[in-house]
Amino acid sequence: MKFNVRVIPPDRELKLKAGDNLRTALIEAGISLDSPCGGQGTCLKCKVQLSGVSQKYTELEKEKLSREELDGGWHLACQVTVEESGEVRLPEVEISRAKASFGLLGEEIALQPNVRGIHFELSKPSLKDQRADWNRLAEYLEQSVNGTVNTSLSLLRELSVRLREWNFSGEAVMVGNEVVALDPPGSTEDRLGVALDIGTTTLAAGLADLGTGRVVAIDAELNPQIAFGADVVSRIMYAQDGHEKRERLQKELIKGLNQLLLRLCRSARRETERIFEATVVGNTTMLHTLLGLEAKHIALAPYVGGLNRPFDLPAAELGLQIHPRGNVHIMPSIASFVGADTVAVILATKLHQTNNPRLAIDIGTNGEVMLATKKGVLTASTAAGPAFEGGRIKYGMRAVKGAISAFQATPEIDYSVIGSVAPRGICGSGLIDLVAELYRTGVLDQKGRILQPAEIKSKWVEELAPRVRVRKEAREFVIFEDENREVTLTQQDVRELQLAKGAIRAGVELLMKEAGIGADDVHEVLLAGVFGNYINRERAVTLGLIPPFPLEKIHFIGNGAMDGALKALLDMEERRQAEKIVAEVQHIELSGRPDFEETFLRCLSLGD
Amino acid sequence: MKFNVRVIPPDRELKLKAGDNLRTALIEAGISLDSPCGGQGTCLKCKVQLSGVSQKYTELEKEKLSREELDGGWHLACQVTVEESGEVRLPEVEISRAKASFGLLGEEIALQPNVRGIHFELSKPSLKDQRADWNRLAEYLEQSVNGTVNTSLSLLRELSVRLREWNFSGEAVMVGNEVVALDPPGSTEDRLGVALDIGTTTLAAGLADLGTGRVVAIDAELNPQIAFGADVVSRIMYAQDGHEKRERLQKELIKGLNQLLLRLCRSARRETERIFEATVVGNTTMLHTLLGLEAKHIALAPYVGGLNRPFDLPAAELGLQIHPRGNVHIMPSIASFVGADTVAVILATKLHQTNNPRLAIDIGTNGEVMLATKKGVLTASTAAGPAFEGGRIKYGMRAVKGAISAFQATPEIDYSVIGSVAPRGICGSGLIDLVAELYRTGVLDQKGRILQPAEIKSKWVEELAPRVRVRKEAREFVIFEDENREVTLTQQDVRELQLAKGAIRAGVELLMKEAGIGADDVHEVLLAGVFGNYINRERAVTLGLIPPFPLEKIHFIGNGAMDGALKALLDMEERRQAEKIVAEVQHIELSGRPDFEETFLRCLSLGD
Repeated sequence: MKFNVRVIPPDRELKLKAGDNLRTALIEAGISLDSPCGGQGTCLKCKVQLSGVSQKYTELEKEKLSREELDGGWHLACQVTVEESGEVRLPEVEISRAKASFGLLGEEIALQPNVRGIHFELSKPSLKDQRADWNRLAEYLEQSVNGTVNTSLSLLRELSVRLREWNFSGEAVMVGNEVVALDPPGSTEDRLGVALDIGTTTLAAGLADLGTGRVVAIDAELNPQIAFGADVVSRIMYAQDGHEKRERLQKELIKGLNQLLLRLCRSARRETERIFEATVVGNTTMLHTLLGLEAKHIALAPYVGGLNRPFDLPAAELGLQIHPRGNVHIMPSIASFVGADTVAVILATKLHQTNNPRLAIDIGTNGEVMLATKKGVLTASTAAGPAFEGGRIKYGMRAVKGAISAFQATPEIDYSVIGSVAPRGICGSGLIDLVAELYRTGVLDQKGRILQPAEIKSKWVEELAPRVRVRKEAREFVIFEDENREVTLTQQDVRELQLAKGAIRAGVELLMKEAGIGADDVHEVLLAGVFGNYINRERAVTLGLIPPFPLEKIHFIGNGAMDGALKALLDMEERRQAEKIVAEVQHIELSGRPDFEETFLRCLSLGD
Repeated sequence: MKFNVRVIPPDRELKLKAGDNLRTALIEAGISLDSPCGGQGTCLKCKVQLSGVSQKYTELEKEKLSREELDGGWHLACQVTVEESGEVRLPEVEISRAKASFGLLGEEIALQPNVRGIHFELSKPSLKDQRADWNRLAEYLEQSVNGTVNTSLSLLRELSVRLREWNFSGEAVMVGNEVVALDPPGSTEDRLGVALDIGTTTLAAGLADLGTGRVVAIDAELNPQIAFGADVVSRIMYAQDGHEKRERLQKELIKGLNQLLLRLCRSARRETERIFEATVVGNTTMLHTLLGLEAKHIALAPYVGGLNRPFDLPAAELGLQIHPRGNVHIMPSIASFVGADTVAVILATKLHQTNNPRLAIDIGTNGEVMLATKKGVLTASTAAGPAFEGGRIKYGMRAVKGAISAFQATPEIDYSVIGSVAPRGICGSGLIDLVAELYRTGVLDQKGRILQPAEIKSKWVEELAPRVRVRKEAREFVIFEDENREVTLTQQDVRELQLAKGAIRAGVELLMKEAGIGADDVHEVLLAGVFGNYINRERAVTLGLIPPFPLEKIHFIGNGAMDGALKALLDMEERRQAEKIVAEVQHIELSGRPDFEETFLRCLSLGD
């Protein structure tokens, strides 16, 4: 049985059949929908408003959506199974001709991209005006461009034919002062740009229409380099065995990016050939492997990479499948462990333009800590390690189907599993919840030790003590168990989390010390990163991952690095700001400080 | 039997054996010697001064060398057969560290090339100074460079290894603001540049040491495109059949240039890899075929090419075998038939900086005429055609062995043959001599008609009349005849020369008219081009190729285009001047003028 669903915008009628998943149906119809988690119900970005449809809320929706959203008929498209005709409204991402807004910050920025189109109508050649074709076009364009207009040999090779075909008028696509493509006169073909965030674990891409400033699609993909090691150091170790392996790493990464670009464009019904620029952020190791640069000195004291400056190169040279004459703009990095992704987070949060002290933490495979005060921005990189992404955790996994993503003990233990299936493991947010709750309920002591059942003094000891399993010296807490499998939290897992927590908290403490401020002075705490959207603020404080800030000061900003890369794509002023950030930010090398070890050891403890 | 010959400079002793040709011996020993004609005795450039050697002068030397040169012991190295020990002095091409001089103009120019070396000693990375390798180098170089320093991905890929190998010091080779190569600290390897003059018939290359400003070698080679047609129009016709043929033409040209570069470097004992920049001049069609650009609109009214602006591209993109990151600088052109070669002639002669009226004529397959007055430089292109290069002439040939290169009737006919062998044909200078002398002696009338023997009124009628052969309507003048072959000048040949002469002379007349000056106002007449060195001034005037200027005003400047390209290689100011020339020069399209046809027809006549 088929029925009609009207989708606004773009105000199109889709024919759906009973049982179709709404998110999948929208994407297949080429309607762009922000859903970086791929329909797992974790990113909470695919919100749609239904009307004329009697759709029940799923448990996950009830838990994740706000009261206002539930009252307003908002759903997560990934949770909606279509059963009848009706209307679907997508959130307004749009934007005026001159302004662009995006991201969770909802900020408006000027639309001044590096890529632009210039309509030209040239005077025709005659015996009185024998200027060569390129001279004619360049002189015309130079009337509206500051400086000399350039182009490439390959464009020159098609120029004469095109100009005569189009009677000497048309649309020039410019990247900076370079003509990279020619469209027929009156062409309304779009000019796209893409922001790429190359994480150690995840590749994310945001596609923007550079004519309107609208972000038309966002998508993410595993970094295929994971096959060569989960963290940056293991990849550096792999690649240092010679340039063939370095090329292998590079090739895999570019293949992954190209697949992501293809999917992104397909879902948005756009052509990759119409992407004329990519802004790229990532940690320095990822940027080095993208360019095929030697990265080993990043991992060896004094930790010096090959390139931290911004760097532009033609897409064709890298093999990135956008327009071959498109520009790839690698954003600048601050230091070997404070990459362009951190610069992008600062851009996105405007941390460098702050008056009141603000703290930002970007948690990925490393944890970058940024503290802004009137005196400027301090940054530190902490070796958080892969625990938050499931690495080195016995049942650790990423935030995909089957992962325990939230946990509570009240008094029975209660947990959420992504995809509402039997649990297979624990992802980062679940791990934080678990350790925080077990600490709150006295199963773990402050040093992170899993207590013997007899030692547990919790009022819910009857529910909790039986779940503590002690075999010889090894202790673990059993979360789930049936005849087929179990999911437990081991003593070693707690230790791993403590190392991550201790590293980040020590970074926060030392930056506050360096700036001479205390937790009370901080006006705002911004949490960014892959799971930045859905960790529980209260638990993060309980755990001591961050100092005991009032919860209302803590805000999640999602993938701030992507937002920053998009800003740099849409507004050249943001690129200049990025260079300013790099020049002005003061990076604190924590391992070089005499007080680092003491602080780190103290921060390993659970709680405050 | 072997003996020693001391060569100064470079003050080396060569072991030669009896019968060795001196020019060949010098080139084989890697001593650079200017001899573009390849030892034919026509270019008169391989002059050397012999002492301690009793060397007789050949007939050719006696004819071609001046009294002072003969008295001073100067010889043409190509004419010298070594028979005993002695000393050979090469002419001083050198040059101080800061000044370069070259060419027949002997002018000094500033040495400010686009390519330069910067020694660097970087502070070493430490925990206190964690700048990335490229940041470190670029920031160092930016202290002595105006603006931002750039580089390419391929250099970045070797940077980290090199810096550590050399303990963070070395020599950076810069092309403009781009680092293109790294040499070890203290390296004394040279930085070379090459000037390329791409003629329709001849490719010429001049190799310069950009550290000293010294021109170390000059060489020339046939343009291999000749197989696809002798003139530009036939090549354009060939290439318009599709881009495969265009690529074929391009490939052949680049192959020819690469062979020339290899030979040039071998003779100068240098490496092509050490050439970091090429400046390229030529007519616009040749520059279009070099770049693989569509050239057909050059030949179709209103005669508009694809590119007349200066254009820079990496050597690797073109396949030119210099350093792959080296820069190829295509010099700007004025109009479709007034190419970068003309701009280079103006640069070489400083015509654009003149106060008194000066005329320059560059005779190749086309004839470019330039007239400078206080009001600026006027240029015109004339369709001289290939007659001067032997094209469309029954016994026409280029200036190689067997060509009649000079002719006189006093009263017996007397001619010189290149290589002193039996004549095989007539080259450009011989053709001018022949027609001029036959006109002077009354064998030709003013209309260029070969008279019937009975009509000839010359006092040398007895010598000349029997050589006029009349068969039906076809008439010809027999220069040489034996049992095996003959060389004659046909009525049709005279017509071809008249067309060429008429075109050039009309160009001269019309430019003088345009400028409002007469022949008496002209202070200097400069003749450039392939045979610019060895046509007879008096005969050129007799023929009416140029107006009857006093002979002392007429100067030969050889390959002025090559001199201009070398200037642009050695001094960036000259490149700015080239753009100024293009912007300021006024090009007169002769065929567009109402008085062209009448003037041209009048100028077809022989004499004044």
